[in-house]
Amino acid sequence: MSVEVGAGPPLERAAEALNAALPQDVAVVSAVEAPPAFHARHSARSRSYRYRIWRRQTRSPFEVHRSLWHPRPLERQKLDAAAAMIVGEHDFRAFTPTDTQHHVFVRVVDDARWRDHGDWVDFEITADSFLRHMVRTLVGTMLEKEPDELIDLLAGAPRSAAGATAPAAGLYLASVGYDRA
Amino acid sequence: MSVEVGAGPPLERAAEALNAALPQDVAVVSAVEAPPAFHARHSARSRSYRYRIWRRQTRSPFEVHRSLWHPRPLERQKLDAAAAMIVGEHDFRAFTPTDTQHHVFVRVVDDARWRDHGDWVDFEITADSFLRHMVRTLVGTMLEKEPDELIDLLAGAPRSAAGATAPAAGLYLASVGYDRA
Repeated sequence: MSVEVGAGPPLERAAEALNAALPQDVAVVSAVEAPPAFHARHSARSRSYRYRIWRRQTRSPFEVHRSLWHPRPLERQKLDAAAAMIVGEHDFRAFTPTDTQHHVFVRVVDDARWRDHGDWVDFEITADSFLRHMVRTLVGTMLEKEPDELIDLLAGAPRSAAGATAPAAGLYLASVGYDRA
Repeated sequence: MSVEVGAGPPLERAAEALNAALPQDVAVVSAVEAPPAFHARHSARSRSYRYRIWRRQTRSPFEVHRSLWHPRPLERQKLDAAAAMIVGEHDFRAFTPTDTQHHVFVRVVDDARWRDHGDWVDFEITADSFLRHMVRTLVGTMLEKEPDELIDLLAGAPRSAAGATAPAAGLYLASVGYDRA
């Protein structure tokens, strides 16, 4: 987030000062000075999200509200094929609710891949920007549908043609890219 | 845990059936049949605990109630030296509350070591059995005291000579060892 301040602690103590005031479930890792025109959201050039799946056969108390529990086997080849198809410029209207505030549904996905992390498997995706629920619906769809079905889904199919919206708990904003000043 | 049952689901479905009834913050990973005299606690020959420290400079919302946040640098050489001294047979009365139900304070520690896991560092300890708060007080003491001071502390010093009891949040029972049937 970005904020304009005229007072308060010096920059090098800002993170610590904010953390002292913030509740435990949010923390500031660092604070830097930005040019006057900078806006954390509007100036962003790309976003990377991660969707985390817990794939053990038994649920984990440590994963509650942190991932999607998927005890059935994952067909990695299919998931990888689907992820590869998502990369590029597509009309993603099938992956956002019909009742929408978006006007443009075309997005450019720079990268999309599944990564193994032991008992987890993560879907990682980077794009210029995202539609509402887009990552969660891409994940839900990849888990349900055949890769071939993505061809139509990525070409402006209606929302009803895609899969379920995966639960919010597995979704993380991993990083945001800005132009170098 | 061990329990004697005369009915209920067959063994191979017991874990799943229990998980369906259990709250989200506890899960059964597997269920096996044991001889009639078996008792999960009394038949145990060793226990392994892990104490987890989060060592980044900023706190993490994901680590709340899961580890001890220790933003100051850890002196690994000292910690390693202290862990090595803990191994063996010692009188651990300095590491349990004075008001105690224990009668014997000697325990045999088979293994004790610090392990790096990126932003975490874990203390791992295996012993025949443990005194109440023993692992937490060992950790608190290693963080506060010089390794040399452990010589007296491991030889029956009073509780007041040892360090603080580290918070419960970082402590995990990692495994329990039984004789092979």
